[in-house]
Amino acid sequence: MTYCLAIKLDEAIVYLSDSRTNAGVDQLSTYSKMYSWGEAGDRQFTLLSAGNLATTQSVVTRIKRDLADAAEESLNSARYMSEAADYLGRLSVEERTRYSDEGANAGFNPEATFLLGGQIKGEEPELYLIYPQGNYISASSIRPHLQIGEIKYGKPILDRIIRPETDVDAAVRCALVSMDSTLRSNATVGPPVELSVYRKDSLVKGFYRCYRSDDAHLLDLRKAWGDKLEQAFNDLSSLDIGYP
Amino acid sequence: MTYCLAIKLDEAIVYLSDSRTNAGVDQLSTYSKMYSWGEAGDRQFTLLSAGNLATTQSVVTRIKRDLADAAEESLNSARYMSEAADYLGRLSVEERTRYSDEGANAGFNPEATFLLGGQIKGEEPELYLIYPQGNYISASSIRPHLQIGEIKYGKPILDRIIRPETDVDAAVRCALVSMDSTLRSNATVGPPVELSVYRKDSLVKGFYRCYRSDDAHLLDLRKAWGDKLEQAFNDLSSLDIGYP
Repeated sequence: MTYCLAIKLDEAIVYLSDSRTNAGVDQLSTYSKMYSWGEAGDRQFTLLSAGNLATTQSVVTRIKRDLADAAEESLNSARYMSEAADYLGRLSVEERTRYSDEGANAGFNPEATFLLGGQIKGEEPELYLIYPQGNYISASSIRPHLQIGEIKYGKPILDRIIRPETDVDAAVRCALVSMDSTLRSNATVGPPVELSVYRKDSLVKGFYRCYRSDDAHLLDLRKAWGDKLEQAFNDLSSLDIGYP
Repeated sequence: MTYCLAIKLDEAIVYLSDSRTNAGVDQLSTYSKMYSWGEAGDRQFTLLSAGNLATTQSVVTRIKRDLADAAEESLNSARYMSEAADYLGRLSVEERTRYSDEGANAGFNPEATFLLGGQIKGEEPELYLIYPQGNYISASSIRPHLQIGEIKYGKPILDRIIRPETDVDAAVRCALVSMDSTLRSNATVGPPVELSVYRKDSLVKGFYRCYRSDDAHLLDLRKAWGDKLEQAFNDLSSLDIGYP
């Protein structure tokens, strides 16, 4: 599995992804699920992927090739972020349906789901979740965070903390706490954890950092959050449930 | 969906269940998913159910009928808790496979999953999770909590807090916090929330309490936990990620 999330704040977009892939529990591997492209001063995109690794790799290869070939439709040709999402949806469906699902392949459906965020000059930043069917939804001020993959463990803390006006530092901490809860509870999500932050209207490649499993910042945050959570829990007053 | 959990502590077994059922999002209803039977001084059982409502109701009806008929095999005939789990697994499989899954019913598979806990005189208390296939696993000192239904949202806090030596009050608070996170994040889990606590070696019906959605205790706990969690989060020191 995978856990990726992105948060569209008033001042920036925060992206976070794990790096574990598995084809069965005895075939674990490590791949980056975060990709960035852009032209400084004109447009910047970041893509996070979940699902079938062959499909996501094919999609990424086609994005790169279309850019290199200056194809009629590419991330560089998109006038709006929604056009970029349409383009990505089309690539994803084409790669998913490229292989036979009949005969010995019956039931084969190498689905992939993507988060695509970024900004094109003159437009607002946008963040989309693109379904395997090629359609998509957008982050909004009511729901600034989008998640793909193993999303449930880390959802409650995002639901409680994240607002559009949350500052970048708090949003990054919240994203890392959400990731940490998922890493603890599900063995199919694993480090390194990649972080990227795109500042609104900068139109340059965002801040990037990769946290390996022994990263001191990540270990400190994990310990601090575990301690504070336990403290918060112990500070809850007794329920006095009436249990004899 | 459903969310039920049970925790086997050194001194007691704690059970907690929601009451929402749904057959599609436009057919929500409220049913108890907690059942208890016992003979004071001899044996006590508590059952929590998730999955197809028709199957779980049939299983419960058969348990009651076998008790009333003093059947050869029933909760009263079991010499060990594992015999009771075997019996429940058999009933569950029989009810699940009772209806045709061919023709117009192709793919029909009304699965149910159960948590069964309790104690028989002279034996240790036990807690089992019974799969739709009829087999089961036991709670252990390394993993004292078992969950069924919509388990992921509320799992991280249990993983962090619950130990066999945790006291009943803390375990109940933790179970309610786990339930509250699930209620907030998933509309298919809903109140009232039923709590039961069986004290080890008491061999009498356990403490029972039903929390309706406007229960002052539950609302206080929800508010206190939300506030403390936010405070704990805000107390985390800045990560100083290097973001410009």
